[in-house]
Amino acid sequence: MLGKTFDNLREKTPLVHNITNYVTVNDVANMVLACGASPIMADDLEEVEEITAICDGLCINIGTLNKRTIDAMIVAGKKSKELGHIVLLDPVGAGASRLRTSTAIRILDEVKPDIIRGNISEIKTLAIGSGNTKGVDADVADSVTEDNLDEMIAFAKEFATRIGAIVAITGAIDLVSDGRQCCIIKNGTKEMGKVTGTGCQLSALTTAFAIANRDDKFHSTVAAVCSMGLAGEIALSLQQDTDGNSTYRNRIIDAIYNMNGNILDKGAKYEFR
Amino acid sequence: MLGKTFDNLREKTPLVHNITNYVTVNDVANMVLACGASPIMADDLEEVEEITAICDGLCINIGTLNKRTIDAMIVAGKKSKELGHIVLLDPVGAGASRLRTSTAIRILDEVKPDIIRGNISEIKTLAIGSGNTKGVDADVADSVTEDNLDEMIAFAKEFATRIGAIVAITGAIDLVSDGRQCCIIKNGTKEMGKVTGTGCQLSALTTAFAIANRDDKFHSTVAAVCSMGLAGEIALSLQQDTDGNSTYRNRIIDAIYNMNGNILDKGAKYEFR
Amino acid sequence: MLGKTFDNLREKTPLVHNITNYVTVNDVANMVLACGASPIMADDLEEVEEITAICDGLCINIGTLNKRTIDAMIVAGKKSKELGHIVLLDPVGAGASRLRTSTAIRILDEVKPDIIRGNISEIKTLAIGSGNTKGVDADVADSVTEDNLDEMIAFAKEFATRIGAIVAITGAIDLVSDGRQCCIIKNGTKEMGKVTGTGCQLSALTTAFAIANRDDKFHSTVAAVCSMGLAGEIALSLQQDTDGNSTYRNRIIDAIYNMNGNILDKGAKYEFR
Repeated sequence: MLGKTFDNLREKTPLVHNITNYVTVNDVANMVLACGASPIMADDLEEVEEITAICDGLCINIGTLNKRTIDAMIVAGKKSKELGHIVLLDPVGAGASRLRTSTAIRILDEVKPDIIRGNISEIKTLAIGSGNTKGVDADVADSVTEDNLDEMIAFAKEFATRIGAIVAITGAIDLVSDGRQCCIIKNGTKEMGKVTGTGCQLSALTTAFAIANRDDKFHSTVAAVCSMGLAGEIALSLQQDTDGNSTYRNRIIDAIYNMNGNILDKGAKYEFR
Repeated sequence: MLGKTFDNLREKTPLVHNITNYVTVNDVANMVLACGASPIMADDLEEVEEITAICDGLCINIGTLNKRTIDAMIVAGKKSKELGHIVLLDPVGAGASRLRTSTAIRILDEVKPDIIRGNISEIKTLAIGSGNTKGVDADVADSVTEDNLDEMIAFAKEFATRIGAIVAITGAIDLVSDGRQCCIIKNGTKEMGKVTGTGCQLSALTTAFAIANRDDKFHSTVAAVCSMGLAGEIALSLQQDTDGNSTYRNRIIDAIYNMNGNILDKGAKYEFR
Repeated sequence: MLGKTFDNLREKTPLVHNITNYVTVNDVANMVLACGASPIMADDLEEVEEITAICDGLCINIGTLNKRTIDAMIVAGKKSKELGHIVLLDPVGAGASRLRTSTAIRILDEVKPDIIRGNISEIKTLAIGSGNTKGVDADVADSVTEDNLDEMIAFAKEFATRIGAIVAITGAIDLVSDGRQCCIIKNGTKEMGKVTGTGCQLSALTTAFAIANRDDKFHSTVAAVCSMGLAGEIALSLQQDTDGNSTYRNRIIDAIYNMNGNILDKGAKYEFR
C-alpha cells in the first residue's frame, strides 16, 4: 500500500518550495531530486509568495532562522495554505532557544501546517513546553522506547488532534499520527544520527510524498518515514570498513534515488495502533 | 583547440570571486578547485569591491538572492568590469519571480556581463520576457531540440548580439553564441538533471575558463560547456547499480579534477554554425 | 599521549556551537559528528547567547561574514567566554579585505579567544599587519618551510604570548604554539588544498578537542591538527585513479569517523621545540 504512494510521487514530479537552513540545504535539494520531485529554495520576503504559488507545496525548516527569513516563512506559509498547498513544518532546535520555540509556535498558530516533523524533544517543546532539546538533537531522556511506547502513542495522537495536523516524531522508533491512528515505524539505523541533516532531508521528502498523495497525507507521511529509514538500512549494508558518515550521507540519498514502490513495500517495517 | 584553453586554466590558476547561492555553493567551490582555479565567496556590500579587486573575475549567481546580496552583486559587478575583469551572470530562476527577473535584467543593464549562462527558460525570460521557468528548471515546452534547432540558433545569435555578450544556453543540447557564430554542443547526460547545482558549477567553471583565456571568451565558454558535459559522461560510466545522484555529484567534480586538454579534445562533441 | 585526547573527545561528546560560513558548513557539521561531538549552527543575534549557553564551546569562522553575523559573533563570543567555554577563532580571509581584517582583530580584542587557527597569511595579517592573503588561501611567499622554520617558530611563540592564546598556523608544515613551546607537525597532504573547507573543518575539530580536554588546550590543539593531517593521509591512500577532490572530501571526513586514539598515536608526526 505504501509503495503506491512512492510510485505516485515519481509519476507526478512535484515542485517543492523549501525555506530551509544553510547547513543541510544541498543534501535536501539532492534528496528531493532523488525521490523524483524538484526543489526550489527561496527565502526573500519579496519573492516567496510568487515562488510558493508556482510550487505544489512548502517545507519550512527553521534550522538557521533569522529575522529576515522568519517573516518569509510566515508569509510563504500563509500563501501556500491559502492556495490549498501542502505545508510541512520542521521545528529544528525548538526548545534550544526562545527564538526557535516562539517561531515554531507562531508558525503552528498562524500558518497551520498540514504536517509537523521533528524529534521527540522538539515536538514535546511544542506540545507541552518541556522538551529537553540538546542543541538540534533529541535528549536521550525524551526517547521513545518500547517501555514508554503506549504513553508516547497517546501523546502523539493527542497533539495531532489538538493541532489538526499529521505529527511525525522521528528517532530510534518513529511515530506518525493523524490523531485517530498512530503508526509505529522501526526502519532506520543508529548510524543515521551521525549524518547531519537526515531529519531535514526527511522533512522535504515527506512534503514531496504528501503533495503527490494529497488525499492521504497520513499514509504518505508514513511512507516517507519508512522510505528514509529503509534508505538508511540499504546504505548501511553497502558501507565498507573504511567508509564513514560522509560516504554514508551519499549512499542514503543514492538509496532513495534507486528506490521504488516495490522496494519500499518489501522493506517497510510498521504497524498501526 | 579547446584542449589548449583547459591547459591554460590549469597553468594560470585564477582566483574567482563568487557571489552565489547557499544551496550549491560548496559544490561550486570544489568545482572551481577541481579545474585548477581558486574560489573565494564574499557577498557583503562592505567588502565585495575589495574582494573582487584581488580576483581575476566574478561569477554572479542569483539562486538565493536577497536585498542585501543584490546590492552586493551590482556593486561588485560594476567594480569588476571597471577593472577589466571577466564577469558572468547566471540568472537562476529568472521568470520564476519578478524579483529574479528584474534583478537579472538590472545586472544585464548596469553591469553588462561578458557572459550569460542559463537554461533556455531563463534566457528566454531575459530575451523576450516569456520563458516558462518551472522553478529553477527549464520548462519542457522551451527545450532546444533537433526540430527547433535552427530557430534556437538564430535566437541565441540575436540575443548575444543585442546584449554584446557571450550567451550560453544549456540543456539536452547546449548552444553558445557570440552573436556571429553559434556552437552546438552535445556532451552531457540526462542524469545530470538529477544533481542539484550542475548549472551553478558550470557557471563558475565557465568564469574560470574565460579568465584564463580572456582573448577568446567564446571558445573558452564552449570549452567549459563541453568539459562539464564530458565530465557528466565520464562520471556516468563509473556509476554502479547501487549509486545514485549523490555519488554522481561527487564523480562529476572528480572527472573535472582528472581532466586535461587532451581528454577534453578527445571527448568534446560540438559543431559551429 | 595525543591519543588520549581523542578518546576523551569520543567519550564526552561535547556540543559545539558554530557561527560559520555557508560555503563549508555542511562538511563542518559532518566533521564534528565524525569526531564524536555534536554541532549546532546558529547565527541570529536574538538567539546566539542562549544557544552558546547550552553548548560547551564556540567556533567562530568569518568565511562569509556580514554585518548581521559579525554582531552575533561578538555577542556569542563574549557570552561563551563569560561562561568559561572554549572559544576558537578562524580568521578566514583576514588580509583579503579590511572588513575581514578588522573583524578578526575586533574578535581578538573583544572576545579574547582561547585558540586562533588560520593559514600563515591570515595569522601574519593579524600579528604584523602584512600577510599576503591570496583570497582565502595563503600566499606562497608566506609559507612555512624548512628554511625559515626557526624564524616562524619564534613568530608563532611571540604572537601566542602576546595574545595569550594557542596559535595554530596550518599549511604544508603546521605550527602550534602556546607561547612557551611550539609543536611542528608534518602530517597532511598537498591534495587537501584542493578540497574546500579542510581548514574550516579543522577549526571545528580543534574546538571539539579543546572542549573535551580543557585542562590542556595546547596538546588538544596539537592532537586535532595531527588528526586532520593523518585523516588526509589515510584518505589519500584510498583514492582510486578516477577519484578526485570531491570523493577525497568524503574520505577525509570518513577517516576521522574511523579514527581513535590508537590510530592517532601511531600516525601522528610531530616534535616540540
